[in-house]
Amino acid sequence: MNAISILGSTGSIGCNTLKVVEHLKDLRVVALSAGRNMKTLAGQIEKFRPDLVSCEDEACVENLLRELHALDMTPPRIEYGEKGLIDVAEHPEAETVVSATVGAIGLVPTLRAIETGKRVALANKETLVIAGELMTDAAVRSGAEILPVDSEHNALHQCLRGERRDEVNRLILTASGGPFRTSTKEEIENATIEQALKHPNWKMGDKITIDSATLMNKGLEVIEARWLFGFDADRIDVVVHPQSVVHSMVEMVDGSIIAQMGVTDMRHAIQYALTYPDRKVNCLEPLDLTRLSELTFSAPDTDKFPCLTLAYDALRAGGTMPAALNAANEIAVQAFLDGKVRLSQIAVIIRQVMDAHTPRPVAHLEAVIEVDAWARNAAQELLGAGAASASLA
Amino acid sequence: MNAISILGSTGSIGCNTLKVVEHLKDLRVVALSAGRNMKTLAGQIEKFRPDLVSCEDEACVENLLRELHALDMTPPRIEYGEKGLIDVAEHPEAETVVSATVGAIGLVPTLRAIETGKRVALANKETLVIAGELMTDAAVRSGAEILPVDSEHNALHQCLRGERRDEVNRLILTASGGPFRTSTKEEIENATIEQALKHPNWKMGDKITIDSATLMNKGLEVIEARWLFGFDADRIDVVVHPQSVVHSMVEMVDGSIIAQMGVTDMRHAIQYALTYPDRKVNCLEPLDLTRLSELTFSAPDTDKFPCLTLAYDALRAGGTMPAALNAANEIAVQAFLDGKVRLSQIAVIIRQVMDAHTPRPVAHLEAVIEVDAWARNAAQELLGAGAASASLA
Repeated sequence: MNAISILGSTGSIGCNTLKVVEHLKDLRVVALSAGRNMKTLAGQIEKFRPDLVSCEDEACVENLLRELHALDMTPPRIEYGEKGLIDVAEHPEAETVVSATVGAIGLVPTLRAIETGKRVALANKETLVIAGELMTDAAVRSGAEILPVDSEHNALHQCLRGERRDEVNRLILTASGGPFRTSTKEEIENATIEQALKHPNWKMGDKITIDSATLMNKGLEVIEARWLFGFDADRIDVVVHPQSVVHSMVEMVDGSIIAQMGVTDMRHAIQYALTYPDRKVNCLEPLDLTRLSELTFSAPDTDKFPCLTLAYDALRAGGTMPAALNAANEIAVQAFLDGKVRLSQIAVIIRQVMDAHTPRPVAHLEAVIEVDAWARNAAQELLGAGAASASLA
Repeated sequence: MNAISILGSTGSIGCNTLKVVEHLKDLRVVALSAGRNMKTLAGQIEKFRPDLVSCEDEACVENLLRELHALDMTPPRIEYGEKGLIDVAEHPEAETVVSATVGAIGLVPTLRAIETGKRVALANKETLVIAGELMTDAAVRSGAEILPVDSEHNALHQCLRGERRDEVNRLILTASGGPFRTSTKEEIENATIEQALKHPNWKMGDKITIDSATLMNKGLEVIEARWLFGFDADRIDVVVHPQSVVHSMVEMVDGSIIAQMGVTDMRHAIQYALTYPDRKVNCLEPLDLTRLSELTFSAPDTDKFPCLTLAYDALRAGGTMPAALNAANEIAVQAFLDGKVRLSQIAVIIRQVMDAHTPRPVAHLEAVIEVDAWARNAAQELLGAGAASASLA
């Protein structure tokens, strides 16, 4: 029986992973990490009986012990903080680690999982965005497989199954276009948090939903695809496909396009990443093509969605620039969610941080961690001191 | 340099194959067979210098010699009739045989090519429809590869490249729906030859274009797919997709649908069949997804298009029944093209021939050849003697 660890078990991907585990029946959960949602984590402990769990800090440990006591459960081994995350990632029995934390916090534990040769089912896209070269180099050295859980990259992985990499022309990531696909620039400028959180097709966490609204999510996916599949920026395209039925495509040198289609439920990609190279019957309703109205495709509007261009620029600049982009984006998105900036200001903040950064090679993790911290700080400074609204207008 | 023979070099597939040969540059044409179009054949001889050519009969040989004389060409070895076809198929230097004759005439030479272990690029779908079991058994014995040139089966072949057969749920053949997709039953009843020959997306020969108008083409493709890929009738579905951008799809057990898309130019599939497992740059404009208006999918209307049901019925009846279906269809389509019956009568003729046939196992080629002759005769009898219009009304 295959044993798995989950980094970020109480988030959207984490909860769906546990649903897949329940469905598949032949997987054992040995370790879980969560942030601060101890009620959910306690429920997961009760159901899946992991050997080890980890949470954000000591206060969370106290809360978790209370929750477990209320459930009349003997606590498993409990850790917290970065050490806890790393122990979950390195759990000696885990053959597969699902990396599903949100943001840069997943970086170190995911690298550790790769270095120990485990299969990594990767949902934390920032990991590849800010340290793709380190991750893929480590995977080559350890023999670890990185299986993408993002539906687009999972689709690309499926499309590439029988194909030779040197016969691929380009990767084509599909983008739903988000809630503002048909909005004017002005409407996007004045978008409320509620509007931005209404993704048309996918139910996801807040951060990634905002990234979908700005198309930064697609930009991060372009960078992610570069590292997962080894194609440079010029060979990764984005096409807007509002129905999200085609999850992504690969164009071969002979002009043939191989596409993967399916329902918009992330459990498909999660299960694929856990069972690959096997495919197994899943618990989802199959896609009924004859009940679709129509599928449409169009080029993205980078004038309305400058974040997509920023991501291509960061990828082409190389080195630590994607790390700066990602960190500035995390801060700016949080500022938007906190009601501190408008949606359109996210791109402005990122551009200013990128303009202030001279990219360096990513020789080791410290280099990106340092740039990550610097860029967060730079973005915070742009936001702070009341000057924000003026300089960002 | 790979050497190829072409059965049916002056038809639509044959001419396109030669265009692909010109583009690829590393293929040598060693043998060509044609029917009665000696002017075109003479031009092909001048350009490709085959060792051997074959035509329909002695009169054609005379015509060909005249055409070659006019071109100041020394004639290659010239043969005719079935022996000529077989010699083209068995040409000792040919590693690949493109089987592109129309109708049952391709049966024996294609089987000979398979038996001699050559790769067969198969465009002649009747070959598999009427003798699929014999062909695939022979391929297993000789190690011959059968590569489909039909765009739908070629698409399925591409979709299945990296997949395990036991993880496939079903094959989904797309159908354009033909020129009468949105017509009423009455309009189809009264369709003219010109209307029926106007295929919305593909430029093909007359016989196959009429088959597309009745959806018999799709029915024959269902039977063809059964033999090419080894799935029974219940696991081969047809979906109407008027834009013909998705050439076909495979649904996996995990609900994932892998689709192949491309331009509607048969040179793509021909080149794929010639270069497989390699993919090479071709001479076609790539598909620009962002310039498509929309892609739609719907279930076929078997009330309006009874030929599709007839084909499923024949496949389920098994044995020699598909041979009877195919032969009756060839006669009925020719009668329609000759202005002798209405389009809707094609299905009536086929149904009557099928009702009069008790299928037998296909133990050897003679069994299907006999049924083929019987069914042609039976269909002719239904058409003949003035009684036709009454009994077929």
